[in-house]
Amino acid sequence: MQYFVGDQEYFKGIGKIAFEGKGSKNPLAFKYYDAKKMIGGKTMAEHLRFATAYWHSFCADGTDPFGSSTMDFPFRKSDPYANAVAKADAAFEFFTKLGTPYYCFHDVDASPDSEDAVAYEKTFHKIADELLARQKASGVKLLWNTANVFTHPIYMNGAATNPDFNVVARAAVQVKNSLDVNVKLGGQNYVFWGGREGYMSLLNTDMKREQDHLARFLTMARDYGRSIGFKGTFLIEPKPMEPTKHQYDYDAATTIGFIKEYGLDKDFKCNIEANHATLAGHTFDHDLLVSANHGMLGSVDANQGDPINGWDTDEFPTDVYATTMAMLVILRHGGLGSGGLNFDAKRRRNSTDLEDLFIAHIGGMDSFALGLEVAHKIIDEGLFDTFVKNRYASFDAGDGKKFEDGSMDLASLAAIGRTVQIEKRSGKQEYLNNLMNSYLFG
Amino acid sequence: MQYFVGDQEYFKGIGKIAFEGKGSKNPLAFKYYDAKKMIGGKTMAEHLRFATAYWHSFCADGTDPFGSSTMDFPFRKSDPYANAVAKADAAFEFFTKLGTPYYCFHDVDASPDSEDAVAYEKTFHKIADELLARQKASGVKLLWNTANVFTHPIYMNGAATNPDFNVVARAAVQVKNSLDVNVKLGGQNYVFWGGREGYMSLLNTDMKREQDHLARFLTMARDYGRSIGFKGTFLIEPKPMEPTKHQYDYDAATTIGFIKEYGLDKDFKCNIEANHATLAGHTFDHDLLVSANHGMLGSVDANQGDPINGWDTDEFPTDVYATTMAMLVILRHGGLGSGGLNFDAKRRRNSTDLEDLFIAHIGGMDSFALGLEVAHKIIDEGLFDTFVKNRYASFDAGDGKKFEDGSMDLASLAAIGRTVQIEKRSGKQEYLNNLMNSYLFG
Amino acid sequence: MQYFVGDQEYFKGIGKIAFEGKGSKNPLAFKYYDAKKMIGGKTMAEHLRFATAYWHSFCADGTDPFGSSTMDFPFRKSDPYANAVAKADAAFEFFTKLGTPYYCFHDVDASPDSEDAVAYEKTFHKIADELLARQKASGVKLLWNTANVFTHPIYMNGAATNPDFNVVARAAVQVKNSLDVNVKLGGQNYVFWGGREGYMSLLNTDMKREQDHLARFLTMARDYGRSIGFKGTFLIEPKPMEPTKHQYDYDAATTIGFIKEYGLDKDFKCNIEANHATLAGHTFDHDLLVSANHGMLGSVDANQGDPINGWDTDEFPTDVYATTMAMLVILRHGGLGSGGLNFDAKRRRNSTDLEDLFIAHIGGMDSFALGLEVAHKIIDEGLFDTFVKNRYASFDAGDGKKFEDGSMDLASLAAIGRTVQIEKRSGKQEYLNNLMNSYLFG
Amino acid sequence: MQYFVGDQEYFKGIGKIAFEGKGSKNPLAFKYYDAKKMIGGKTMAEHLRFATAYWHSFCADGTDPFGSSTMDFPFRKSDPYANAVAKADAAFEFFTKLGTPYYCFHDVDASPDSEDAVAYEKTFHKIADELLARQKASGVKLLWNTANVFTHPIYMNGAATNPDFNVVARAAVQVKNSLDVNVKLGGQNYVFWGGREGYMSLLNTDMKREQDHLARFLTMARDYGRSIGFKGTFLIEPKPMEPTKHQYDYDAATTIGFIKEYGLDKDFKCNIEANHATLAGHTFDHDLLVSANHGMLGSVDANQGDPINGWDTDEFPTDVYATTMAMLVILRHGGLGSGGLNFDAKRRRNSTDLEDLFIAHIGGMDSFALGLEVAHKIIDEGLFDTFVKNRYASFDAGDGKKFEDGSMDLASLAAIGRTVQIEKRSGKQEYLNNLMNSYLFG
Repeated sequence: MQYFVGDQEYFKGIGKIAFEGKGSKNPLAFKYYDAKKMIGGKTMAEHLRFATAYWHSFCADGTDPFGSSTMDFPFRKSDPYANAVAKADAAFEFFTKLGTPYYCFHDVDASPDSEDAVAYEKTFHKIADELLARQKASGVKLLWNTANVFTHPIYMNGAATNPDFNVVARAAVQVKNSLDVNVKLGGQNYVFWGGREGYMSLLNTDMKREQDHLARFLTMARDYGRSIGFKGTFLIEPKPMEPTKHQYDYDAATTIGFIKEYGLDKDFKCNIEANHATLAGHTFDHDLLVSANHGMLGSVDANQGDPINGWDTDEFPTDVYATTMAMLVILRHGGLGSGGLNFDAKRRRNSTDLEDLFIAHIGGMDSFALGLEVAHKIIDEGLFDTFVKNRYASFDAGDGKKFEDGSMDLASLAAIGRTVQIEKRSGKQEYLNNLMNSYLFG
Repeated sequence: MQYFVGDQEYFKGIGKIAFEGKGSKNPLAFKYYDAKKMIGGKTMAEHLRFATAYWHSFCADGTDPFGSSTMDFPFRKSDPYANAVAKADAAFEFFTKLGTPYYCFHDVDASPDSEDAVAYEKTFHKIADELLARQKASGVKLLWNTANVFTHPIYMNGAATNPDFNVVARAAVQVKNSLDVNVKLGGQNYVFWGGREGYMSLLNTDMKREQDHLARFLTMARDYGRSIGFKGTFLIEPKPMEPTKHQYDYDAATTIGFIKEYGLDKDFKCNIEANHATLAGHTFDHDLLVSANHGMLGSVDANQGDPINGWDTDEFPTDVYATTMAMLVILRHGGLGSGGLNFDAKRRRNSTDLEDLFIAHIGGMDSFALGLEVAHKIIDEGLFDTFVKNRYASFDAGDGKKFEDGSMDLASLAAIGRTVQIEKRSGKQEYLNNLMNSYLFG
Repeated sequence: MQYFVGDQEYFKGIGKIAFEGKGSKNPLAFKYYDAKKMIGGKTMAEHLRFATAYWHSFCADGTDPFGSSTMDFPFRKSDPYANAVAKADAAFEFFTKLGTPYYCFHDVDASPDSEDAVAYEKTFHKIADELLARQKASGVKLLWNTANVFTHPIYMNGAATNPDFNVVARAAVQVKNSLDVNVKLGGQNYVFWGGREGYMSLLNTDMKREQDHLARFLTMARDYGRSIGFKGTFLIEPKPMEPTKHQYDYDAATTIGFIKEYGLDKDFKCNIEANHATLAGHTFDHDLLVSANHGMLGSVDANQGDPINGWDTDEFPTDVYATTMAMLVILRHGGLGSGGLNFDAKRRRNSTDLEDLFIAHIGGMDSFALGLEVAHKIIDEGLFDTFVKNRYASFDAGDGKKFEDGSMDLASLAAIGRTVQIEKRSGKQEYLNNLMNSYLFG
Repeated sequence: MQYFVGDQEYFKGIGKIAFEGKGSKNPLAFKYYDAKKMIGGKTMAEHLRFATAYWHSFCADGTDPFGSSTMDFPFRKSDPYANAVAKADAAFEFFTKLGTPYYCFHDVDASPDSEDAVAYEKTFHKIADELLARQKASGVKLLWNTANVFTHPIYMNGAATNPDFNVVARAAVQVKNSLDVNVKLGGQNYVFWGGREGYMSLLNTDMKREQDHLARFLTMARDYGRSIGFKGTFLIEPKPMEPTKHQYDYDAATTIGFIKEYGLDKDFKCNIEANHATLAGHTFDHDLLVSANHGMLGSVDANQGDPINGWDTDEFPTDVYATTMAMLVILRHGGLGSGGLNFDAKRRRNSTDLEDLFIAHIGGMDSFALGLEVAHKIIDEGLFDTFVKNRYASFDAGDGKKFEDGSMDLASLAAIGRTVQIEKRSGKQEYLNNLMNSYLFG
């Protein structure tokens, strides 16, 4: 099948996005992403495991804190259920025209929300059947889903960390059903992003109790998920702030500490988002590497922020320095496993042509394809890795190795230190930066 | 004894700083800090446990990245040893005139550095004897000491995390001797601040191996310290960056995760610095609270940063909002224990009058005294605590309590959630902010 | 009249907010703001000229980028016109119960927007008559109004700086009518905030042409305003970014440069917002002072941001350090003139009690009242001013004065410099900070 | 002449840096910078006008706020004058081996400082003769010089803005002599960077008076410079902060406003530094463009900062996105004129190999060469320019043109606006970002 079309074609005039290669000026073609191209024994598609995000692509309408909706969606219907079905048709048409083999969604992206929990559940499962049918028809798979427990006003004081038990219970309705739907759809991961799990003011907050509640809630979700046959990975997505003043899952290190503290490390990993890492004062690759070093790199939200704007701009990733550094971590880590590169990114509010949705994704996919090629070549040629390995060679044998192995005490170490001759060794950062440019620019 | 004077008086014309109370316009008197005033069963001095920092007060000379020394010290001598002894005299004169019962120092603040490790050790122990004599004479105690393994060029690539084993060994000389001296001086804590334990570029860094080395080094130091009779607390001081691009002990949460990961949590706690917390994107009280919640609040570096400057300005704390929030955490946590409030703060480079050193500390002490009084009153009257307790009351009994106790599964929780009526409950942040002002401004 | 009530009372159970003074624990009373209290020859009310903002108080419903509406307004009606009238009733009830003598609004805060320009105009003028009637009935005055040319999707690429002339023309409809309404209502100022007058990307922007268009538009608005009898001040409100990546009116200095470059300085001044100044890397008082130094301090948007959050949080001002520093600039500048302190501030999204709207404003008014009292005392006692005056005394006479007067050339100055003896003079910053605390805390 | 060597060769083993082109792995060769390659009618060297900075390259020794010197310089001599001469030899050897046709220096970089003004002057002029001889021998030219009036402790409260007239006079000695030396050396520009021209606290500062003094000082310097035959451009280098809390020349817009306010715009332009622009919340190309739009783009300090570090890291520029955006502004502006690209950049403190100094510069030169090639191609092919031109086409004729020409009033504009049909037009940002990548990556 070339691409999926439902009751009607929504992205008319746009066919299957083709690889045209370098030099193409066609905005609706790939220049670098060639899905079937082999890179080190795997295809680009297998390496990159791209996913489209339902919320930014088919729900978000350009509204921002100072402006109302700018986006027109050809699939909008006034009846909520019909709208959801048309949206699913459009989404799968988009996935298959673009060529992202995975997708991700929040419950209320795909299915209408309802104050009535029973109605919510019933509709959600019906929509899940619709999604399943389209998955089967198209071959597109669910990378992960999640429950949106931050938009509705009942969550204004938190979901699992809400001071009101009733709200926690109401959040459980959404999470339980999202897990049920995940299993139905064969989801490979399940995500928690704690948009409201933090605080607006410490004056009204019992941080310890809230964090205990959060861990309790996650534990219950884990147990429930396993009980119904969910075999995938639970993921927590760190973010430092926004919408709260301060979120508990601040960054990778904080999140990993939390996961371990509450004994969730057998089941939970991190979903690292570039723009969240930079808001927390890190680089994208830093937070990927922290996760990888702890065996906690679960999946990736592929986007980029603007270094001069202090909020989550969720731009499509186009900085090839960043995608290369990210792919270096991912390749050295052995790949994304059951995770993927989900475009948690939105076209700018004033990118209102429907084709811009394709163009934006094409740019992100091409940028990661470039990053993959460069990173693969860097690892393959080994200049960087050899440099680093040599730099630490004094720990590979002798006293250095004893130190590393733990078979030396401080007094012995100091005894050695009393007589060492220390040679000045350059970190060669400028050399390495130049070398990186030579890989990037040929 | 009113105050200590060594061979000569260095701060002539300034006597013991007295409490004169509100309304005093004397810059060299306390307006709020009355050491013996009882606050909730302890004196102000017992609550606040102030320490003077040797480095900023008696070593730092006003040099900044764009300027050379501005400060004149009356105790400077050309002979390094004589200089160190005179500095000790001046320091203890200062401590006792000002009235800070504790002090803190790096090895090379107090004792001359030397490329020759044996000479370094010998001199350091002699200087330690000098310090001990002055401690006995004055009653001033050592809150903590530490080894400066970041200034010397050999540490340019790190100390415990240096890629060169020889440097790690050389750092051990300083740490071992610093621990020896700590025991000699009856230090209550021992601090690690990893100024160079981080990276300048991920391109030349093996982060995992470096962090393993850091943990190994700390473990060895812990074992050595315990073996020689050190009974106090080992402290790690988080800082996110500067001088490195990225430090491993980024903030309290990261540091606590590290401490636990490597099994150091029986011996190690955090030394929280206000300006480091704010550079990491947190408030001072946030990082104090994170530490306290984990039983990891060891001690405090009392200073403040400038929210519009992105580096460590190390200003004396004068923001009484911040000192009050800090004291709220500390009092609720049961006090500082064996920790203290160390003024890791420097007068501005252009505050060149010798009296400015006193004035700066007086401001810091007065600001924390104000914070203590306000925080004590807030806790005593209970309005905030009651507000918070009531906010979470739904978890004190019934299903909420079952949830908290772990005796409920997700399906049961969701079943409750299906039928709950959720009442909108204001977080009342503006009310609480106004209440805070009414405590601060009478 | 105690307070205004329209067809029905909307804020039931809340009467006229009274001054109860220090020690009052009544959240719905002033502790520091005593409108009629004389401070240096003027009442507090005359000094502070408080205004309530229509948009945050009666329009914004708690929506944020990750959440939907949380606020209930008792005056909401389904018919747009009836809703606007009820909102006006509620607003004037609020103004008069609270005691803010001024108000501010955007066209579409007060009057329903319409795609049909003629309908928009007609309705707006009818609503203006409603507002005028309530002004007369209550004595409340219009501090300023403005046109919202940033929310509607047509403005997604800018209003006066839009690349499409048609959009510029459509924006003119709103500005022209807003000026007409201003004159009808006796507005004291007219404001431009260029929410979309900036860029999202330099790749698609002709910055020079856009800035020329902006100046042209403002010139036309100025000419039109004067032609219809507007005697007040035109104000530009600087903000560095958000919603755009970069706004042209970045900060006070940039805005003043723009105003002068295009010859608008006879008619235009700055409206300085605290949170906008801090987002631009300045303090609130810095941008006030820059404006005052250029005779360009027109009015103030009184709020505060959160130093750890990189977006416009628009919190009610409660930091009395900041309000004191602001009032020092304002008092030294001779007061606010025809400007005022407009609360461009919103209660937190989870402050959902209707009384929170009062409490939030009370906190802001009390904080500025405290700031006024402290600043007045500081100026009255003269310690700071004398310190500063003395610091520059070398320019009051002799060669320093010649330098300042311009009657010295560089060679002469250097000749003097060859022989000067320079005395080190402390900036005494810590002394001044302590002195400030002694004014704030008695 | 291949390269200059003085009394001895200091960079032994390194010859003239050659262009080896893409694919070369030689760290000491250019991959992209081919000085004589023609790009649009000029050589790369003529376009880029590279300059080496004396201070970072031959003076700065790796000291940072937490560490002492790491760098060894083979030319260091104990006698200050002999040291200066050897440094000059090394510098010109470096310039000519590397191939930067220009250099830049502060007075005290090149010549020993002295408390004795007369000695300072005498030595400085002797050193200037030494420099002149080497200029003649090598063909290297002076892009600009400047006076360092920020390092010495007398400048701790400012230089031209110092509250003490004597300090202002002493600063004049340095500026006068620096201008004299400039004329002697045929300098093409003269720079002012106000490292201490700002404030640490507004509590002790008279901002207005200080800014008046600054303008007076610059005016006097301008008059003196013109009187002695300086024909070049005076440049002010904006920086927002550091070492002061807040510098007066915050960014390009602020600086241009200041220049115009004091009538200096015939003689003064901006020297834009990348890392200063980013610290001020702008991109590099933004501040270049603001300057260019005002005819105020004088010269460029070519470096880059680290977006996660809030201080001036002064790294060598290697981000080819940034160099391309910069070169786009510069080429569209008609080139650098008498300005140049001065590497105000330092190798990292731990890049201690002498060859790192070459490698770092090579990386910067290659990155700008790449940026030049890409920018030239972009302009040559016209896709971006045409896109932008078309975007504003509605102002090229008809009513839009009337608006732009100023021959339309607000009422007429609003009359048009009442009836316009507005078409939604995408900003196409993602398309343009992708197009940029296709230019960068082929």
